[in-house]
Amino acid sequence: MEIAIVLWDRFTALDAVGPYQVLSLLPGADVKFVAEAPGPVRNEIRSLAMVADHALSDVTSPDLVIVPGGMESAQLDNRPLLDWLQAVDATTTWTTSVCTGSLILAAAGLLTGRRATTHWASLEGLKTYDATPVSERVVVDEKYVTAAGVSSGIDMALSLAGTIAGEEVAQAIQLLIEYDPQPPFDTGSPAKAGPKITENVRTLLTAATAAR
Amino acid sequence: MEIAIVLWDRFTALDAVGPYQVLSLLPGADVKFVAEAPGPVRNEIRSLAMVADHALSDVTSPDLVIVPGGMESAQLDNRPLLDWLQAVDATTTWTTSVCTGSLILAAAGLLTGRRATTHWASLEGLKTYDATPVSERVVVDEKYVTAAGVSSGIDMALSLAGTIAGEEVAQAIQLLIEYDPQPPFDTGSPAKAGPKITENVRTLLTAATAAR
Repeated sequence: MEIAIVLWDRFTALDAVGPYQVLSLLPGADVKFVAEAPGPVRNEIRSLAMVADHALSDVTSPDLVIVPGGMESAQLDNRPLLDWLQAVDATTTWTTSVCTGSLILAAAGLLTGRRATTHWASLEGLKTYDATPVSERVVVDEKYVTAAGVSSGIDMALSLAGTIAGEEVAQAIQLLIEYDPQPPFDTGSPAKAGPKITENVRTLLTAATAAR
Repeated sequence: MEIAIVLWDRFTALDAVGPYQVLSLLPGADVKFVAEAPGPVRNEIRSLAMVADHALSDVTSPDLVIVPGGMESAQLDNRPLLDWLQAVDATTTWTTSVCTGSLILAAAGLLTGRRATTHWASLEGLKTYDATPVSERVVVDEKYVTAAGVSSGIDMALSLAGTIAGEEVAQAIQLLIEYDPQPPFDTGSPAKAGPKITENVRTLLTAATAAR
């Protein structure tokens, strides 16, 4: 099973690495990090770079595509990327995203009329592309699987792993990566964090986007 | 606050990226990926590479060091790495690890007589270096903070973020990365996974180590 993880300038690292750490352990998985041009691709805060070993043009029929999120605005009219997503989607078994990666899928026209999710602060953005925003951690609409913000890609990937290879394989992967979450706080959603922290984070995100 | 994340050949990606995604969002964080030589460093299953922007020798007084785990055997007598860890530990505020990264800290002599944790399948290995293995997700012994397998680095980093910058900052980071874990299965520890899956994973890990 060929898995293409798409890197793009200003992506968010955990969006890509969370699903990678799960799905790369599937029996027969052949994971390829792809980008417009091969080479290092830097994340949104610039202190991290991951290597794309392959150009988009070299990977033409992946079985599974994963689009991470990040500071995605420049990608929403990036024709080479959107055209590639459209082209490969014609033959994928699964087309997936984490965080604002779903906005990129939507901009490529792949989520029109579909239920999808994204980072909680960007949910409304899906409407621009005639997708129906759903505030759930993982949303499955036929072969289109979208995950909420950043860390949710791990949950999405475990769920997909179960569907693809069976529950026992997915459960073994969960044990292998010791995914027995014990966060010291319980503020992982706006409802749990409360209005004050939520507004602070929203302000921070708006400022970061404006600074771009 | 200078944060050095150490990359080494055959590290595990999520061990490094989990804590990165949390701690890089601390106000004033200056994260540097370091390795013996700058450039791409490949993970244990070779399909992922991250870039070390700095050589170990260029980063001499980080406030916080994070050592990821992975297929660590070749690092346990890697003198340049162990010597660097010893040297910078003299002035760090926090010396930390994820997964089998604690075995590397232990090999550098930094966990002697201390309580520490690591991946569940490697706990006994800590005794080789006169550290006391503790089967907890995050173990704090003064400035030495060790996390269990792979995904536990996210929990460790959130806990550290709270200690360093206050709970409200850590809680905002948790919301920003939407860390509201909802794994579809509950097999993240040997006790939860049961003996059959645990033995399967142990066999797999032994085979992978032997293949090296």
